[in-house]
Amino acid sequence: LFDRFLSTPEMVEVFSAPALVQGMLDFESALARAQASSGLIPASAARAIAQACDARFFDLDVLVAQGSVAGTLAIPLVRQLTARVALTDPAAAGWVHWGSTSQDVLDTAMVLATRRALALIDDRLVALTKALSDLEHQHGPAPMLGRTLLQPALVISVGFKLLSWTAPLVRARQRLQAAAEAALQLQLGGAVGTRSVLGEQGAAVAKLVADDLDLAAAEGAWHTQRDSWVALGCEIGLLCGSLGKIATDLALLAQAEVGEMAEPEGGAGAGVGGVKRGGSSAMPHKRNPVAAMIARAAAQRAPQHVAALLATMPQEHERGLGGWQAELAEWPGLFLSAHGALTALADAMAGLSVDTQRMRRNIDALDGLVFAEGVAVLMAPPLGKARAHALLEDWSRQALAQRRPLQSVVEAALAANPSLGTGITPEALRAVFDPVVVAQAAQAGVAQPWARLRSRMAELDAIADAFDALSNPSPPHLP
Amino acid sequence: LFDRFLSTPEMVEVFSAPALVQGMLDFESALARAQASSGLIPASAARAIAQACDARFFDLDVLVAQGSVAGTLAIPLVRQLTARVALTDPAAAGWVHWGSTSQDVLDTAMVLATRRALALIDDRLVALTKALSDLEHQHGPAPMLGRTLLQPALVISVGFKLLSWTAPLVRARQRLQAAAEAALQLQLGGAVGTRSVLGEQGAAVAKLVADDLDLAAAEGAWHTQRDSWVALGCEIGLLCGSLGKIATDLALLAQAEVGEMAEPEGGAGAGVGGVKRGGSSAMPHKRNPVAAMIARAAAQRAPQHVAALLATMPQEHERGLGGWQAELAEWPGLFLSAHGALTALADAMAGLSVDTQRMRRNIDALDGLVFAEGVAVLMAPPLGKARAHALLEDWSRQALAQRRPLQSVVEAALAANPSLGTGITPEALRAVFDPVVVAQAAQAGVAQPWARLRSRMAELDAIADAFDALSNPSPPHLP
Amino acid sequence: LFDRFLSTPEMVEVFSAPALVQGMLDFESALARAQASSGLIPASAARAIAQACDARFFDLDVLVAQGSVAGTLAIPLVRQLTARVALTDPAAAGWVHWGSTSQDVLDTAMVLATRRALALIDDRLVALTKALSDLEHQHGPAPMLGRTLLQPALVISVGFKLLSWTAPLVRARQRLQAAAEAALQLQLGGAVGTRSVLGEQGAAVAKLVADDLDLAAAEGAWHTQRDSWVALGCEIGLLCGSLGKIATDLALLAQAEVGEMAEPEGGAGAGVGGVKRGGSSAMPHKRNPVAAMIARAAAQRAPQHVAALLATMPQEHERGLGGWQAELAEWPGLFLSAHGALTALADAMAGLSVDTQRMRRNIDALDGLVFAEGVAVLMAPPLGKARAHALLEDWSRQALAQRRPLQSVVEAALAANPSLGTGITPEALRAVFDPVVVAQAAQAGVAQPWARLRSRMAELDAIADAFDALSNPSPPHLP
Amino acid sequence: LFDRFLSTPEMVEVFSAPALVQGMLDFESALARAQASSGLIPASAARAIAQACDARFFDLDVLVAQGSVAGTLAIPLVRQLTARVALTDPAAAGWVHWGSTSQDVLDTAMVLATRRALALIDDRLVALTKALSDLEHQHGPAPMLGRTLLQPALVISVGFKLLSWTAPLVRARQRLQAAAEAALQLQLGGAVGTRSVLGEQGAAVAKLVADDLDLAAAEGAWHTQRDSWVALGCEIGLLCGSLGKIATDLALLAQAEVGEMAEPEGGAGAGVGGVKRGGSSAMPHKRNPVAAMIARAAAQRAPQHVAALLATMPQEHERGLGGWQAELAEWPGLFLSAHGALTALADAMAGLSVDTQRMRRNIDALDGLVFAEGVAVLMAPPLGKARAHALLEDWSRQALAQRRPLQSVVEAALAANPSLGTGITPEALRAVFDPVVVAQAAQAGVAQPWARLRSRMAELDAIADAFDALSNPSPPHLP
Repeated sequence: LFDRFLSTPEMVEVFSAPALVQGMLDFESALARAQASSGLIPASAARAIAQACDARFFDLDVLVAQGSVAGTLAIPLVRQLTARVALTDPAAAGWVHWGSTSQDVLDTAMVLATRRALALIDDRLVALTKALSDLEHQHGPAPMLGRTLLQPALVISVGFKLLSWTAPLVRARQRLQAAAEAALQLQLGGAVGTRSVLGEQGAAVAKLVADDLDLAAAEGAWHTQRDSWVALGCEIGLLCGSLGKIATDLALLAQAEVGEMAEPEGGAGAGVGGVKRGGSSAMPHKRNPVAAMIARAAAQRAPQHVAALLATMPQEHERGLGGWQAELAEWPGLFLSAHGALTALADAMAGLSVDTQRMRRNIDALDGLVFAEGVAVLMAPPLGKARAHALLEDWSRQALAQRRPLQSVVEAALAANPSLGTGITPEALRAVFDPVVVAQAAQAGVAQPWARLRSRMAELDAIADAFDALSNPSPPHLP
Repeated sequence: LFDRFLSTPEMVEVFSAPALVQGMLDFESALARAQASSGLIPASAARAIAQACDARFFDLDVLVAQGSVAGTLAIPLVRQLTARVALTDPAAAGWVHWGSTSQDVLDTAMVLATRRALALIDDRLVALTKALSDLEHQHGPAPMLGRTLLQPALVISVGFKLLSWTAPLVRARQRLQAAAEAALQLQLGGAVGTRSVLGEQGAAVAKLVADDLDLAAAEGAWHTQRDSWVALGCEIGLLCGSLGKIATDLALLAQAEVGEMAEPEGGAGAGVGGVKRGGSSAMPHKRNPVAAMIARAAAQRAPQHVAALLATMPQEHERGLGGWQAELAEWPGLFLSAHGALTALADAMAGLSVDTQRMRRNIDALDGLVFAEGVAVLMAPPLGKARAHALLEDWSRQALAQRRPLQSVVEAALAANPSLGTGITPEALRAVFDPVVVAQAAQAGVAQPWARLRSRMAELDAIADAFDALSNPSPPHLP
Repeated sequence: LFDRFLSTPEMVEVFSAPALVQGMLDFESALARAQASSGLIPASAARAIAQACDARFFDLDVLVAQGSVAGTLAIPLVRQLTARVALTDPAAAGWVHWGSTSQDVLDTAMVLATRRALALIDDRLVALTKALSDLEHQHGPAPMLGRTLLQPALVISVGFKLLSWTAPLVRARQRLQAAAEAALQLQLGGAVGTRSVLGEQGAAVAKLVADDLDLAAAEGAWHTQRDSWVALGCEIGLLCGSLGKIATDLALLAQAEVGEMAEPEGGAGAGVGGVKRGGSSAMPHKRNPVAAMIARAAAQRAPQHVAALLATMPQEHERGLGGWQAELAEWPGLFLSAHGALTALADAMAGLSVDTQRMRRNIDALDGLVFAEGVAVLMAPPLGKARAHALLEDWSRQALAQRRPLQSVVEAALAANPSLGTGITPEALRAVFDPVVVAQAAQAGVAQPWARLRSRMAELDAIADAFDALSNPSPPHLP
Repeated sequence: LFDRFLSTPEMVEVFSAPALVQGMLDFESALARAQASSGLIPASAARAIAQACDARFFDLDVLVAQGSVAGTLAIPLVRQLTARVALTDPAAAGWVHWGSTSQDVLDTAMVLATRRALALIDDRLVALTKALSDLEHQHGPAPMLGRTLLQPALVISVGFKLLSWTAPLVRARQRLQAAAEAALQLQLGGAVGTRSVLGEQGAAVAKLVADDLDLAAAEGAWHTQRDSWVALGCEIGLLCGSLGKIATDLALLAQAEVGEMAEPEGGAGAGVGGVKRGGSSAMPHKRNPVAAMIARAAAQRAPQHVAALLATMPQEHERGLGGWQAELAEWPGLFLSAHGALTALADAMAGLSVDTQRMRRNIDALDGLVFAEGVAVLMAPPLGKARAHALLEDWSRQALAQRRPLQSVVEAALAANPSLGTGITPEALRAVFDPVVVAQAAQAGVAQPWARLRSRMAELDAIADAFDALSNPSPPHLP
């Protein structure tokens, strides 16, 4: 229940029992077709098998009950499939699952589900990065506080902040595409990975099955060599980490006392059955950062799910005892979390309120102290950096103690001792204390990075389109 | 799918959406009753609310969909409940959830589910420890190899090995009972934990609700103080670790090359729909250690689930943003794993094959080298330990090199140089090389510990009976 | 380097190589003494061995280098010790490590170090809980915002907040004492845990060694039964979670925009070599929450360290291959983190600035919206809860839209429609909007819990004193 | 102590305090040089700063003590450096650390250390994969048991097994090189990442510093965007997983009851100070798989270290409070573990004993049951797969029950009922039961993959050579 609450119906469906069983059956029918093409089994058998491969006719509760006894879900699946085939073509029944093993079926089904999951994730990644890019177009140059160790530090621009959120997501897309290419492979090895039953035709059959399912054909089986696969899981973990960073910043900026950003009250889903986004049953004034909540939950869970995958890697000999089974069970969690987080944040960012006036007020409330570094830089050439820094420390302390703007402290000090300000024009000094000017510099620094990022986003979209074409979001190969 | 495969239908039901929703409704009706008893709301309202609290009338998909928007499942639950109550008693509808908050409902529902989960776990812990104790009665004194770093070391007894499996499980029961006592508490704090709406009657109402639900009444709310709760999760993690140790030993002993133990082909569940326990579709000779597999999977997953719970502990202020929600989502996984592992192992141990003859052959195959330490001890008093040890190292090397039994090497050496064997009778020497004698010593050492363990088991059974009485395994309070 | 930076010199010393080696030697000398008392070895040998057991005479680099080859640090340790003993008493050299095994030495040394570590931790727990209790005495009744999901919710009291920080720490002390009692046991089992060399005197010798080292005597060896031991590690993880909660709240309250609490500039360690606490080289205005930083770092690391311990639990047969060694290596990290966090927070709380005026201003800035629930409660008896709630939602929206205080909106509405306010006196209405009155109610609710907590603290101090007496913080038994 | 025991002196040195401090100083001197080249500071200042940048002159204990107070190690480092520079050139002292921030110094130092760490890791990866490739040349075609779920399954070849160990390591090298390219970047952002002090020259200065240190110049700061960096950590975690798989197989094959492989008694390090590899103080016959132990320990620890890195990713705003500091502290552990594991396994594989006769005996001991699948394949064309399979199940049961070789059961059955064997020659039947023939097929299947793998290894060596040239294993830039 709470898992579903933090995910999306689309992703829940991808890893649902019916969808996974359909994936298993897609493997079985593709295998039969490939073996028929290779002359290993009769063409009529392949047809009969393919016709029986429809998950709607299988009893999932029986599968699970018998699977727990047998030690693998594939045994009862093959039994049910064999029985169904035998109804129409008794001779064909004997060729079901020929030359294959449990792990071939289950791993390939998981690969097929994962391809669909990645298409869903990529879709939301595109939406989220686009929303962030749009926000940058709207608010890029506005000054806001940069904060370190949860304390105000210097002034930055909104565009600088948004770049720091967006760039990791674009890198995540890029790394995900590379990891997916390596991980989305057919599993086909037979009992111990040698494809012993298929004999010399092993590689050829594997190629045919892989082509049929639009998967890469691994050089051999990867029954207990899970590195490429778990590497993909790591990428999802990294993505959740980057989403967690955005969500944390967003939640902090949405605090009533900060008030610089707020999730939309409306947005997708708002008003579902009259339920307000982020509302509270008891407190009418509340506007909870719900998207940030979901993404932060994902970021807290994902590291452990990745650890679980890594922990299962030392699988024994030619098929593991416990490790493989644990890996399969842990795998969907990462994708459920990531898609929940992405969907929530994409939604929030599409309607985000950015309060640039409040950002300005928060800067102004600090009496100019965040500009001390700027003054020191201005004074360093004539006085030396050391002396300039010491003076600013002193003046900052005065400003704090007297609750006076630092600017007036500095101006008074320079008036009293003009030699300190040699070569510093009043305009230059004012500029140093002007949030807009300071933000301009920050914004100038991100102009090129934003341009490059946007062109990379376009390139990745093109690759993703090709990729999506393979991952029809409807359950694959349903007759 | 793969989660269920590694768990049990009983535990899946405990944390199923309908059961959890029923738990939430049980909280709401108990709250209304307590408030009516305290004069805070009309008695008729409490009756109307209680009547509406039946999960079968709630739409779970709507709950999840609206919950994701609202940021909590409690909001749509309270809406649906309010609407149902309004059908029969519009005035009562206003008193639904009075003085309570989302977290009160959800946490208490999780506590109720967890109490049922613990009863299931305790039941299987009893069965498993009993099966192990029975095995000890049957095979206790039989000699078997003790192994360190996956190499043969010395001879132990079967009873010694079984004690090392059983004692941690008995300690786990004991620690679980203590942890449950601290963790199974009502959650009732209202919006920020102060029970503000209930005013001075807060503590009294909480006591009534707790009594109604047979839970402990916490001193206050524990909205963001999760230590007692997560401590219970840690105990499940520790239990999975101890089960993983047993499963690992069992799998190692069941290797064809070792062959000292084997899981039953029969046992509970075997033959479900004609599916053989631990069989293989391709290889008729196989008898896979399925129970060990399930328990090892649990032991690989549980540490990360515990880490996830611990990672969510730093929840912000009076209700967390992400941490609490992540904790709820991670919680059931531990119990699902643990019950799957316990059930599988209890089943396996109830029908375990123990091949004491093979144990003996495995000892004999080592040419007596595992008795070298015993000879050294025998020779130490006359010769000093250092010299005795050096001699044995030398003789062991000879035995290895010549593939001769160490005993004959030693006898030859003593015959050649009788002064080395001063005071050592032939009988004493034979005894040192006799697996039965060596195992007897090991077995003698565990007689008292086994006796104490069995009496502790009986004590814990008595406590558990009382505890079980509170945890009726049927969904609680279903009207 | 970064590990040490987040810990303390005291805890670094406890798990330093010299201290651990001394612990190993303390085990060896206690073992020899016990065997001499039991007549197993000559008394002179025990004396010679004890005299040689001084870590200062051992070459630690050689230990590590040879240990990596041998597969255990105990082998080179015993070699060096034997060589040293042989210098003074060649006959005694043969009795070094008699009847013991690597794991006996290393585990017992780790137990001895852990006892010292727990004494350090308890000491800082006492200091921290005392500092929090003192803060409650000073500021208990002051009103502050309660916040949920990082948004303002209702008004609480400072004493309520402090209780929520303190109670888990007191529970942690209590659980730690219980866990330590179970975990701090002698390890003594010989090669496979049967104490084979010691024969029938095994239990008696173990009792003597345990008494000598002031440890509990386990019923047998616990070479591969790590549950009681890892349970202690879990407790440290739970403690770090509770510290992380405090640190997170503190850091949030210390944000410039919130400003309700601040870590001291002074305090222990401040001014070490002229370095300011929480300062910044570049920004003179900064006052970083350094203690919160250290505690949050601990809370992020501890869950994974606990997971590592749990993951190593399935240790094979009578001694593990990898799991045990990994556990030993992971163990100290938890204690290093926890002590760093405790020390930093104890220090920060001892000098904490609590700005009750700012707390009040933060409440006032919200235009009374956080009192809406209180008004609804006031109006519920005459109007029914449902209508009261609906009215308040409406008025709150007005207040938000018009940026008017909710109180004036309500007063105007009641004036316009007096029937709504039947039975509500102006005083009662004012009270509902008075932060001091609302905080009083919250504070009243924690009076008893605080009293009970303080008396439990006193009880635990008494137990800890007894416990500390056993854990002389100087390296144990250094001659 | 136990950390060092599971790692290597070389890797311990890379992350030692002096080496890290030297890395920080290398950053400071490179920064000063770059600023002098850009005309931002006097050339004489850069020279004076560079001369003072020698870690040997810094007091590390003072650094740590003051760093804990200040909240960062950089503050006391800059203080000590400034003081040293002031001794020779007081004017230059003011330009120390100009325009930089704590995180720039510490992150860059960690990047420099990590580059050296990766060079060490790559070196051992080369050695290990080369040793495995050599073993394949020696023993490739020899038949051995393939095992699934820790039970014998079919016959494979040694070359097949070795491919399954080697291929993931070659992929790991490949992925590590890619991840390192993205991760080994200069950190230079100033107080909030905008390079505010450097103004328009920010990018140019960054380029100069990066070139000086032979690092990539990131597009901006990555203070709180840790994805590329943590992705590198994930790769080390994946490598440890693949090493753990090898180690687990090796340990299982080295069991006395299996005896197919054994770690060398000799090899590097053996005989250090007369300590035998994998020996036991008490049991002269023991030959413990020490390398497997170290690699398994790494595989059990690494997942949690990766999780810790991922958990720290949501770092707040422009510099994190706790997350960043925790990440730095967790980082070295992964590399220490990985290098220990790689070094141990490379050493073990270089001298591995492969007992092909024992492999053969282990196959023979199974009475031909592992060939049942092969017979079924032979009989499927005439009889149909279903009937063939059923017959084999029956005959296997007979063989098991009567402890007769399956081959003789089959021959007897075919003799009794010749129609079953239509078209099956006696030679064909014998071939199916011949381990050499079966292994040949498996070996034939890996011929091409091995060829491709070896050429990829050569390509990677070439890239690594270029990479190594940048990572002089002596501490970088020591004057």
